[in-house]
Amino acid sequence: MAFALRIIAADGTARAGVLSTAHGDVLTPAFMPVGTAGTVKAMTPDAVRTTGTTIVLGNTYHLMLRPGAERVASLGGLHRFMDWPGPILTDSGGFQVMSLAKLRKLDVDGVTFQSHLDGSTHRLTPARSVEIQHLLDATITMVLDECTPFPATPDEARASMQLSMRWAERSRAAFRPRDGYGLFGIVQGSVYPDVREASAHALLRIGFDGYAIGGLAIGEGQATTFAVLDATMPHLPADAPRYLMGVGTPDDLIGAVQRGIDMFDCVIPTRAGRTARAYTSDGVFNLRNARFADDAAPLDPACACPACTRHSRAYLHHLFKAEEMLGPMLLTWHNVQYYQDLMRGLRTAITERRLDALAAAVRAGWAQEEPP
Amino acid sequence: MAFALRIIAADGTARAGVLSTAHGDVLTPAFMPVGTAGTVKAMTPDAVRTTGTTIVLGNTYHLMLRPGAERVASLGGLHRFMDWPGPILTDSGGFQVMSLAKLRKLDVDGVTFQSHLDGSTHRLTPARSVEIQHLLDATITMVLDECTPFPATPDEARASMQLSMRWAERSRAAFRPRDGYGLFGIVQGSVYPDVREASAHALLRIGFDGYAIGGLAIGEGQATTFAVLDATMPHLPADAPRYLMGVGTPDDLIGAVQRGIDMFDCVIPTRAGRTARAYTSDGVFNLRNARFADDAAPLDPACACPACTRHSRAYLHHLFKAEEMLGPMLLTWHNVQYYQDLMRGLRTAITERRLDALAAAVRAGWAQEEPP
Repeated sequence: MAFALRIIAADGTARAGVLSTAHGDVLTPAFMPVGTAGTVKAMTPDAVRTTGTTIVLGNTYHLMLRPGAERVASLGGLHRFMDWPGPILTDSGGFQVMSLAKLRKLDVDGVTFQSHLDGSTHRLTPARSVEIQHLLDATITMVLDECTPFPATPDEARASMQLSMRWAERSRAAFRPRDGYGLFGIVQGSVYPDVREASAHALLRIGFDGYAIGGLAIGEGQATTFAVLDATMPHLPADAPRYLMGVGTPDDLIGAVQRGIDMFDCVIPTRAGRTARAYTSDGVFNLRNARFADDAAPLDPACACPACTRHSRAYLHHLFKAEEMLGPMLLTWHNVQYYQDLMRGLRTAITERRLDALAAAVRAGWAQEEPP
Repeated sequence: MAFALRIIAADGTARAGVLSTAHGDVLTPAFMPVGTAGTVKAMTPDAVRTTGTTIVLGNTYHLMLRPGAERVASLGGLHRFMDWPGPILTDSGGFQVMSLAKLRKLDVDGVTFQSHLDGSTHRLTPARSVEIQHLLDATITMVLDECTPFPATPDEARASMQLSMRWAERSRAAFRPRDGYGLFGIVQGSVYPDVREASAHALLRIGFDGYAIGGLAIGEGQATTFAVLDATMPHLPADAPRYLMGVGTPDDLIGAVQRGIDMFDCVIPTRAGRTARAYTSDGVFNLRNARFADDAAPLDPACACPACTRHSRAYLHHLFKAEEMLGPMLLTWHNVQYYQDLMRGLRTAITERRLDALAAAVRAGWAQEEPP
């Protein structure tokens, strides 16, 4: 079982395909729910599967601190630990070190930091990050990189990108290839097309099984995100998967798929599910709003998840008002279902060469959407 | 569809039967998980059904305050609201008024109290309690009573019981009989056999579809609980269901089934599920305990729930340490499964006239049990 993406249809720059892995196939474009600490928050693995999810993301930073990579390995790996036999992509830990850890100190070889849990000191290098992901048995390993902060000057962006490229090379050297497993490089370069292009070429010279675009959706705004994609995508090989990290809203996903992105991860659907924000074909609702107290209608009549087929908006409103755990459970399920239904629709539309028409129809349905 | 209990087997004073109701049959002895505010905490209705649960309990006090009985009625009743088409028993609200509400004031006609949620003033009388339960569409309605505090002097117990009997009469008068629906009276009388007997006779004179035993498991200890049962059961009709309210541990359930109880409710399995306490055939474990961090064994090899068949003790330990919602979700599911498996075992043992042998075997398995 080779790790490979087979493109089965294209519509403009968008493409639909099948990514074959040691742990099963992933239909692309694919959305990966985030399973931070070995669980997609508030969902059983069965519920995750039911939404049509084929691949989930795990967080190296969280798992290395608790329960520990060696422990997960001794318990049979992350697939077995969390009962997810399908593909798992793990991030490198770098992003969370910079956003969550205390007293982090970056040097040319890696980063030293204190755990946000207990203050203990840890060291993450490209080789150790890859080793941790190997211990977790990640289907797709990400290179350690520095997510260039936004905003950054061109010089800062280039220096940060060059550090990431050195780390990418070390990550590649540390990676132990296995059949059906892959290692992805990460394009950095902030909002500067020339730096992004240089990063893409540097990664291509090293050679990876897939290419991610990092350092976006961190405050630059959707128009800039899309402009960076437009400038970067032509420099990525057509036959390798392209993964836009940490993105995004449903609208972001549509725009990025139109630009040729194959894979996404984002906490939005799960986090929103815990805070009463519902993503629906009619837009985004906050279920705590009093207008839902007597609303007997289903949350989204177009959705087949249990929240929509078994319950009323009034019941979901009640669960959030009463702070019942079933509220986050049902709404997380719904939001992930909404995201996966959207991806399924996009895949089908690409195959039928009607992606722009679908995108317009979906966006029209969001007339009521509150700003995200 | 008449509301009726058909006894199908007996073993000593224990009996197994089928309670027919408007919303389906209940195999007895039955355990009712508590669905306080219209949800069995941390479980989907599908998960509740999967455990073999046939009847759940709803709390009048919680539901009258939020979302409100009239609102539930306008949304189609509690069955539809919470997606539980099966039988639902609702309590009268009296117990929670005395344990949760602020500034409660009891008089001969009822109780006035302030909501623990917003301080608003409410009044609960026997007629209003029955009306609320009618609005909720409860399959089984409980009379409003006073749960006599423990300890109480004989005079206090008798006076309190007499008040409850007056309320039982008013509850009966307010109840609107419907085919397949039932109204249960509640025996009070603290720990005094003569007061319990007088209460039972008073209820029989009024006439109910079932008889509950209230005012127990509130600090008197298991030996006293069982002594009160021994003194009370002979005064209850053999052909009506007998419900021991708010009880209890697995050991309590076994002893009460041996004494002829048909129905139970208790928050123990669900509450314990949220606090990492696991009920298993080997006894009670606290999954936060560090000894489980590397334990690859299933929580309870005898159990078929997802927590036990899909995951290790180490994973469940990790979920609780990481405060992931999936910990309470999986462990609540397991604990309810354990309770329902226990009830199924007791029903089968009664049918096969080997209840005492089963009870001894189950208790032997609990050798490691920590004190509950």
